[in-house]
Order: sequence, then structure tokens, then C-alpha cells
Amino acid sequence: MSRPPSTISRRRLLSSLATLPALPAILGVPEAAQAATSDNPLPSWNDGPAKDAILKFIRATTEFSSPDFVPAEERIATFDQDGTLWVEHPLYTQVVYCFDRVPTVVKAKPELANEESFRTVLSGDREAIAKLSMADLLKVLAATLSGMDVDQFRDEAKAWIGAARDPRWKRPYTDLIYLPQIELLTFLRANGFKTYIVTGGGQDFVRAYSEITYGVPPEQVVGTAGGVSYQYAPGGRPVLIKEPKLILNDNNAGKPEGIHLMIGRRPYFAFGNSTGDQQMCEYTKAGGGARLAMLVLHDDEKREYAYGPAQGLPDTKVGTFTEALYDDATKDGWIVVSMKNDWKKIFAFEG
Amino acid sequence: MSRPPSTISRRRLLSSLATLPALPAILGVPEAAQAATSDNPLPSWNDGPAKDAILKFIRATTEFSSPDFVPAEERIATFDQDGTLWVEHPLYTQVVYCFDRVPTVVKAKPELANEESFRTVLSGDREAIAKLSMADLLKVLAATLSGMDVDQFRDEAKAWIGAARDPRWKRPYTDLIYLPQIELLTFLRANGFKTYIVTGGGQDFVRAYSEITYGVPPEQVVGTAGGVSYQYAPGGRPVLIKEPKLILNDNNAGKPEGIHLMIGRRPYFAFGNSTGDQQMCEYTKAGGGARLAMLVLHDDEKREYAYGPAQGLPDTKVGTFTEALYDDATKDGWIVVSMKNDWKKIFAFEG
Repeated sequence: MSRPPSTISRRRLLSSLATLPALPAILGVPEAAQAATSDNPLPSWNDGPAKDAILKFIRATTEFSSPDFVPAEERIATFDQDGTLWVEHPLYTQVVYCFDRVPTVVKAKPELANEESFRTVLSGDREAIAKLSMADLLKVLAATLSGMDVDQFRDEAKAWIGAARDPRWKRPYTDLIYLPQIELLTFLRANGFKTYIVTGGGQDFVRAYSEITYGVPPEQVVGTAGGVSYQYAPGGRPVLIKEPKLILNDNNAGKPEGIHLMIGRRPYFAFGNSTGDQQMCEYTKAGGGARLAMLVLHDDEKREYAYGPAQGLPDTKVGTFTEALYDDATKDGWIVVSMKNDWKKIFAFEG
Repeated sequence: MSRPPSTISRRRLLSSLATLPALPAILGVPEAAQAATSDNPLPSWNDGPAKDAILKFIRATTEFSSPDFVPAEERIATFDQDGTLWVEHPLYTQVVYCFDRVPTVVKAKPELANEESFRTVLSGDREAIAKLSMADLLKVLAATLSGMDVDQFRDEAKAWIGAARDPRWKRPYTDLIYLPQIELLTFLRANGFKTYIVTGGGQDFVRAYSEITYGVPPEQVVGTAGGVSYQYAPGGRPVLIKEPKLILNDNNAGKPEGIHLMIGRRPYFAFGNSTGDQQMCEYTKAGGGARLAMLVLHDDEKREYAYGPAQGLPDTKVGTFTEALYDDATKDGWIVVSMKNDWKKIFAFEG
């Protein structure tokens, strides 16, 4: 009796597969990110001084026998968002959101269409928009980010972030998060650190997606914050209405000020990427014991972007990594992370 | 061979002890609080509608099969402090602290001694102090709570709270916390709730002792907050200096506004004791699903104090439980907790 053909062909298939390249390569599927394990918690980081500094910091602050041991309740880590946790170039995602909202806002208040700033945004003329003054830009941001109740704002921001696509990768903005940073957030949390986002971006905007995107709950997002006022909707339901009134400008000196207001403890770890993070890094390092400050340097033109005047890269409007910031980092022992050299993989979707 | 005497006497001692009343009673030591267990999580609460409401709320929000189940990350509980977690009568503890600091402040700025408000406080004349206008009082508070760096302020507040004694019980103020509320905080946490203090008191002041006293870390204290400014001390060390500038008045409508600013989620549970908590309770109850709002009624003249015009009790300057608040509670289903009837034991030190 001959062997049943099905058995033979399955054996042949299996032995053929063993000699072939890995299946994802055949199928054209991007290689899955290497999973983080306790032996290898940062698989998307290349070996080098940046990764070493992180591992050394974790040992110093969490090993009970370490002279720099930090009690669990004091383990606070703060991360800037734009340019540190996700792509900020060529425009902050929140600015795109505000521009997208302009037609709705103008529909509700038609008189705004007569204002230069709104007319420019409505025209869609990219060059003219890029030339808007900061005062005009702030006028547009204030009008698009206030006047509604906070629940409505959150729902609209969530819906937008789910539907919008970035122009370069044609993906949701929340796909443009840096895989090495997600591993780092996870690694810090596994070692008892409370991870915070401390962003110049709008606190309410970032809170709308931070929990799903980064595992950072709303109460651990410190951002530029406007006031809200407690009012009653028709029918008597109490609502909190977003007001065009600045409570906290969470940039530069505003970052340590915001950290004190919202957290009340000095971080042991801070990660930024621009002059807006200078004071947060400085304040973090000025505490006693083992403290680590890090900065992302955008020097990977191919996989992400290269910008900032440090090391001769072109200056841009956002995420300014200046020579002065580089000097601060060198003098005070902050670790500069090269996207090009220190990150094996930048995005989870990379091939 | 006869038994060794030591064995005999130990046996005798043990059998004698078994027939005696409990040891603390013999020694004149107050009976230890009944320990909370999972079967009896609130031993200092009497059986009744208040305790029932808590147990029902926990079942509704945490049992997976409940239609009102709340995911763990959304379980937020907010507690007022003065009059809700500890004694506020006859003066807020923080006001005592500010008055105690006046001589130091006047020594540093002698010109203040010419001002009516400071002269009155320095005189120690209780009647005159009680008659100070709110504007004068705020002047004294602002001067005693600003001008120093936040670390120095925290250390001084900690030292004061450790050394000061209240005039009635002659105990540290942190002994005057309500045992039933400590049990409730613990019970909520054991059921996945993040417990916050949302206080009209100064955020930095309460943060100085909240972790040790209530198990509530600084980042879970929302309070009346002044601005800080990032500066450099001589030698270049960066410091945050407390400024006499109000950022958040965390009373009345300021409570839900502060909750949005600092937490970004609507609470499922709120506990207050005065009109300053009205909006927090209202805002909490206006959310969907099972929400619980509770109010302490100070009606126990013997074990604590009786004050507030509700139910004909005398009105006072602090912790006003008005008739209108009572009506709100009745209409909206908030639970009024009678200290006299609902709390078996008020303080851990009680005999």
C-alpha cells in the first residue's frame, strides 16, 4: 500500500520550508519587532552609551543595595511628547488638528472668515500658512480649542486622531510613535516608575489618546492648559466649558513649574528633544542621587527627519536642538540620543 | 523528680490570663481599633444607610457582572480634607500654621509690623484675630505662604506639623484624622480606586503630610494652588519660588475645575462636608452609571463638634453645612453621614 499523498506532500512542504528564508520575508510582511524581555528590555535600542546609561540608571535607583536606591513612591519619569515620543516634523499634530477644525469654527462664527488668520488657513495655501505670525497662529489655536465642553472636546479629538492620516507615511499619527521610547516607558514602569508626559502641547488634546497610545493615563499628562469654567447646560446638567484663558504654558521654565503644580515631586528621569525641555532636564539633574536626563537628536533623514542647528543640521520652526542645548547637555551630563545610531528600529511598522 | 518551677508558673500565668479581661483594659490603654478585614472593611462605621450605600457602590462598580462595572483605570474617588478627613474646627490647621509663621515673616520684613493685620496676629488677641476681614486674612496667608523655595516650604511645613499640638486634645493635628475615613480610603484603594484629596486648603501644605497621614501621595492632592517661578539661587542651583499669585482657587466651582485640570477624569465617588463641596458632589453625580456623593454632618458635640445651620446647629465661619446643601443632598441622592450615628469610633486614639 502506498503512502497517502497528503502525508507525503505535507512532509515535503515542511522540509522545503526549513531551507527557506523566514516566512514574513517571503510574504512581504514587515519583520515583527523583537519582543522586549527581562533579559533584553530595550530590543530596539542599539548597544552603546545611551542604552548603557539607561540600564545603569535603573540599577542605581532600584537595586535595594544601591547607595542611590529610590523608594518606589518617588520614582517619577517625565517625557516630552512632540519630537520625543512621536514625530513632530514638519508640523505638530495638534496644529494640524486645529487647522482641520477651522471650517467648523468659522461655520459657527461666520465673522471669523473676515479675519486675516482664519482666511489664510481656509485658503489652504501652505506657504501663506507657514508665514502666519505667532499672534495669528495663537488666535486660531485659541478659537479652535475653546468654547466647547470638555467631554465634547475629548470625543472630537479622539475621533479626529482615529481618522486623520499623516502625509508622509499615510498612517494614523498614533502610529508615528517611537518604538524605542515605548520600550523605555514600559521598562521604567516595570521598575516602579510612574511615567508622565510633560508636553508643550495642549493637555486636553494629549489626554484624549495618551492612555491608548502610550499607556499614560490622563492624570499623568501635564501640558499647556487653559482654564475651564463650571456652568449649567440647558436642562441643568453641569458642564465644564473650555475657556481661551491660559493657566499653564508648559514650555521652558513652565515645565518644572507644571511638574510642581501637577506632580509635586522632582523627577529622577527626564527625556526631551529641544530647548523647550532645557529647564526640565536641568531641574531633574539638580536633585540629589542618581538622576538621568536624555535628549533625542533628530539626525536620521532617511528613517525620520534631520533638523536642528546642532551638528550643522538645518534649523526649523519646531523642536529646536540648538548648539546651546548641546553645550548644556555636555556640561551637565545629559545623554544625547542619536536616532540614527542609537535606535535600531524607529517605528513598529518599519520593514 | 518534681516539675521545674518555671514551667508551673508559666502555666499558671497563662490560665490566669485566660480568665482576665482584655489586657488593654487592665493597663488603661484605649482599646485598639477593630482591624479592618475583607469581611468587615469598615469596622468603625455603624450599620445603617451610609455604610450600606458604600458597600452597594463598591459592588456596583467593581463586580465584573455588574451593569455599572467601572474599568480600574477610571476608578477615581475625591475627598475634601478639612472637616471631611480631619477636624477643621474652630480653625483650619493651615490658618494656625500661617499665624505661627507670622513672627518669622515679620522678622524678615519688619515693615509688615506696621500693618494692621500683622499687628493683630502678633498681639495674640483671639477676639481681634477672629474679627479680621477676609482681605486682611488673605494678606497674612499670602505673606506666610510665598517667597521661599518649594523644598524649603515643604520641610518647614513638615517640621511644624510634627511639632504643633491642637489645643483641645493636645495631640499632633495629624492624630485628628477620622478613623472611619481612613478605613474608607483603604477600602476604596483595595477595590482599585485612586484616592485623591481635593481641598480648598493649600496644595503644597497638604502635600507635605498627605502621604504619611492618609496614604495619598503628593500627585494625588489637588488644592488651592499658587504659582511658582523657576529661578536660580546664588551658585546657579535652579529653584522653584512660591509666588503670591493664585492659579487655582479649589473651592466651590473651583473643585470640578481643579479636578479637570489635575486629574482629567470625572470622579465616581466624592466626599465633602460643606457648601465648598457642593459642585464637586453635583459634578460627580452627573456622570453616568453608579456614582456616590457623601457629606459629613458635624453633629457630635461630645466626641468632636456640632456646627452648621443644617438641622438647627449653630452657624460658624468654617465648614458651612447649609440648609440649601441639605436640600441638594436630598434631591440628588447624596448620602449625609452623621458623625454621631454613623461613626462608631471617630479617632484612633479614642478610649
